[in-house]
Amino acid sequence: MTKTNAGRFFEDYTVGDVITHAVPRTLSGGERAMYHALYPARTALYSSDEFARTCGLPASPIDDLATFHTVFGKTVPDVSLNAVANLGYAEGRWLRPVYPGDTLTSQSEVIGVKQNSNGKSGVVWVRTTGHNQRGEAVLRYVRWVMVRKRGTGDAPDPVIPELAKSVAASDLVVPEGLKFADYDFTLAGEPHRFGDYQVGEVIDHVDGVTVEEAEHMLATRLWQNTAKVHFDATNRPDGKRLIYGGHVISLARALSFNGLANAQMIVALNGGAHANPCFAGDTVRAWSEVLDVAETSAHGVGAIRLRLVATKGSAGALRGEDGKYLPDVLLDLDYWALMPV
Amino acid sequence: MTKTNAGRFFEDYTVGDVITHAVPRTLSGGERAMYHALYPARTALYSSDEFARTCGLPASPIDDLATFHTVFGKTVPDVSLNAVANLGYAEGRWLRPVYPGDTLTSQSEVIGVKQNSNGKSGVVWVRTTGHNQRGEAVLRYVRWVMVRKRGTGDAPDPVIPELAKSVAASDLVVPEGLKFADYDFTLAGEPHRFGDYQVGEVIDHVDGVTVEEAEHMLATRLWQNTAKVHFDATNRPDGKRLIYGGHVISLARALSFNGLANAQMIVALNGGAHANPCFAGDTVRAWSEVLDVAETSAHGVGAIRLRLVATKGSAGALRGEDGKYLPDVLLDLDYWALMPV
Amino acid sequence: MTKTNAGRFFEDYTVGDVITHAVPRTLSGGERAMYHALYPARTALYSSDEFARTCGLPASPIDDLATFHTVFGKTVPDVSLNAVANLGYAEGRWLRPVYPGDTLTSQSEVIGVKQNSNGKSGVVWVRTTGHNQRGEAVLRYVRWVMVRKRGTGDAPDPVIPELAKSVAASDLVVPEGLKFADYDFTLAGEPHRFGDYQVGEVIDHVDGVTVEEAEHMLATRLWQNTAKVHFDATNRPDGKRLIYGGHVISLARALSFNGLANAQMIVALNGGAHANPCFAGDTVRAWSEVLDVAETSAHGVGAIRLRLVATKGSAGALRGEDGKYLPDVLLDLDYWALMPV
Repeated sequence: MTKTNAGRFFEDYTVGDVITHAVPRTLSGGERAMYHALYPARTALYSSDEFARTCGLPASPIDDLATFHTVFGKTVPDVSLNAVANLGYAEGRWLRPVYPGDTLTSQSEVIGVKQNSNGKSGVVWVRTTGHNQRGEAVLRYVRWVMVRKRGTGDAPDPVIPELAKSVAASDLVVPEGLKFADYDFTLAGEPHRFGDYQVGEVIDHVDGVTVEEAEHMLATRLWQNTAKVHFDATNRPDGKRLIYGGHVISLARALSFNGLANAQMIVALNGGAHANPCFAGDTVRAWSEVLDVAETSAHGVGAIRLRLVATKGSAGALRGEDGKYLPDVLLDLDYWALMPV
Repeated sequence: MTKTNAGRFFEDYTVGDVITHAVPRTLSGGERAMYHALYPARTALYSSDEFARTCGLPASPIDDLATFHTVFGKTVPDVSLNAVANLGYAEGRWLRPVYPGDTLTSQSEVIGVKQNSNGKSGVVWVRTTGHNQRGEAVLRYVRWVMVRKRGTGDAPDPVIPELAKSVAASDLVVPEGLKFADYDFTLAGEPHRFGDYQVGEVIDHVDGVTVEEAEHMLATRLWQNTAKVHFDATNRPDGKRLIYGGHVISLARALSFNGLANAQMIVALNGGAHANPCFAGDTVRAWSEVLDVAETSAHGVGAIRLRLVATKGSAGALRGEDGKYLPDVLLDLDYWALMPV
Repeated sequence: MTKTNAGRFFEDYTVGDVITHAVPRTLSGGERAMYHALYPARTALYSSDEFARTCGLPASPIDDLATFHTVFGKTVPDVSLNAVANLGYAEGRWLRPVYPGDTLTSQSEVIGVKQNSNGKSGVVWVRTTGHNQRGEAVLRYVRWVMVRKRGTGDAPDPVIPELAKSVAASDLVVPEGLKFADYDFTLAGEPHRFGDYQVGEVIDHVDGVTVEEAEHMLATRLWQNTAKVHFDATNRPDGKRLIYGGHVISLARALSFNGLANAQMIVALNGGAHANPCFAGDTVRAWSEVLDVAETSAHGVGAIRLRLVATKGSAGALRGEDGKYLPDVLLDLDYWALMPV
């Protein structure tokens, strides 16, 4: 019997199954520093313990996307090692900040399966939850992937979960104690507050970053994501390594500081598509569109729903006349963030 | 109104203005480790808590140049986003060590402006101070940059600050408690003490390091320096990314360990010029010249004034017959360091 | 007199000499995070404080190989700066786990010298010990290197130490308190326990990682290894930088997680050869062979002796018909690890 993990195939997923993922991970100031070295991240709450305390938190949390990558990375050996494509995200909610010293684990429940008509692959939906060392949920999200079939057996009864188009503003979790009453806009980097953003407004984040192989591999390894397409140049006929989609998400989010410096905390992931692959040498830019705004239960804390688009060309159109993403579009992400009103 | 930062132009600086820079930053063991991964840094005081305690400090401080980069990085969006050139440094003094857990902020006062005769740009002088979370100044220095003009308005009255050619030895701040009475030269790496260095002595630091794109970008991001010339390969017609001058400073200082292992703490920056641009693929070498030596107020602690030159060829001459820096010279830095007598 | 270190030559080693190496180093969560960014390391004991506590340790230790690299790096300026080749390792034993906050120093005793028949170089054997800040030994190993001779003097009387072919199972040190009674195989990543491995069994670890210049230089600097062949592209006629052998060891060990996830702690290094040089662009793969199994003094803790082979092609044969390593073989390492029975 082989001792190595060949990954699961479509047949290995049954609705209702709960998968506990290896390997638990303790995060420290080291991962925080690496995050700042890998992305041009400047959001004040994640940069300064003092700023975070002014906002009612005990210390500066680990970046929300670092939490996402850590929880997500653990799922790769069980969910996407044989994935043909990462199809989408939905109903993502950050439930509790993660601090240096916390240890994260991940669990996924299979909530949907649907074999493709070609009989060679199928779509699997999982709801993944990240927990800290006290067993508290810190993040929960749904993603679905296309997975190869191992054999030629019968198709399972299709189960397609009903997923919300976006997380309702009333379901957003504002971290306990968070307040923006003493918020310092100068230290945060921009004067624009919640009321300054209009639905439909588009912000070009101006800056671009050219990506190197070493960088995306350092990042992807840091989150213990083992998918070989990111690391092994012999894996594809063209000798290229595919950049982990999460690397593009973090890059785009960090670039969005320029215009959205006060969109401090990410609290929900409504959806997202990795529209085209990103490769080393690409220069990544980003633009955002304000999709919605909402009050939250916390005094002084507003929620802003943003479309974040990463491109490898200039900011511009998203889809062609055929409705498909234009070739320069890398990412189309839909999320909620918290902002001082 | 656009929400993104286009940076300030020459007209936006008035002598006496004080700019509080975003974003505060807490440093940890993570930044320390990154510094050691990015530079061949071996100075014992910054490598070992135990060694630092033997020298009278509570723990190993964050490298002095990491403090410099952190304080400097914050000033970029306000001072040098539209800079044509970084012209010089003066009167730099480290005032207090920074330790893991400290949070740094930066403020700059405009102390000089002088429009260029072409009417299209001007020189701006700022005095920048870095503070820790207790409001104590940790570093103060002057730098001046050439900045583009936005329009064609009248030139302001020129104000050219009088700057010291070098920091007087009597103005050097020896960190409280620092002592070299129990200094272990074996653990520090070299036997040469203060008295072994003669003014005029030149030391070739022998080793060379070939620089990669990923490295200088990791470094520059780590200090939250956002200048796009360092990150965006589409920004220059030649497709090259300009390496942050501070990266070359740290590289040269680390290389200077070989011959100056006991020049433990940097306490003053007398001046410096980034003589030529550095690009990925360049192999950086360094040599030093002893410019001055002085006693300090602390028993057993000497101060050595050094010229630190980085080149991308072999160590050798600094200037041509025309008085200009030779094309291989990257950096000409003038600083004071503390050394056991 | 030059102040820089030209390194020692063959004549500079006398059997019985003890060399205290510079520079002490404090490790933190930062080095831990860097290790995870540099290698696809997933061993649970080194990833999670919680998992480590379940195994009876106070926290997650620094990776055993990071300890090795830190102790080894210090010896480079004194032992291998003028080395022609790193010939072998023997009798390596990890004696105590290293935790964030610990400060490591290194000492080497010269235990053998033998001039080569050409009179231009010789072999030097050293026994190196790493200590923590309490003076406790954490690691001890023998390595031997071929070193250039400075002059043409007489050969010293040859002393060739007798070295064990492998560390006896009864000499392995199981860290105090280590227990696998509550070991969670699901969180660790694989179900295979001690009893599932047979002597002679070969495991192909499947995955490959293509190496970049920036990565191996970040790693090698992190351990303060100063050997210029790793950093200076002008040092070899072919313009290539030789990758530090330890980088390949860590890469191969991390890849071996896939099939050996429960080989948690490395406790002995029986031997090792860097069979061929590794360069940036190479895609590194690994396979292991079970050489031996043994009980230990600790209840529930087994010891497994493994050959770990890294290649830059596909896994396969090790030596050609002439008995020499095949050109694709990078590393042939022999070590003991601890595993739940």
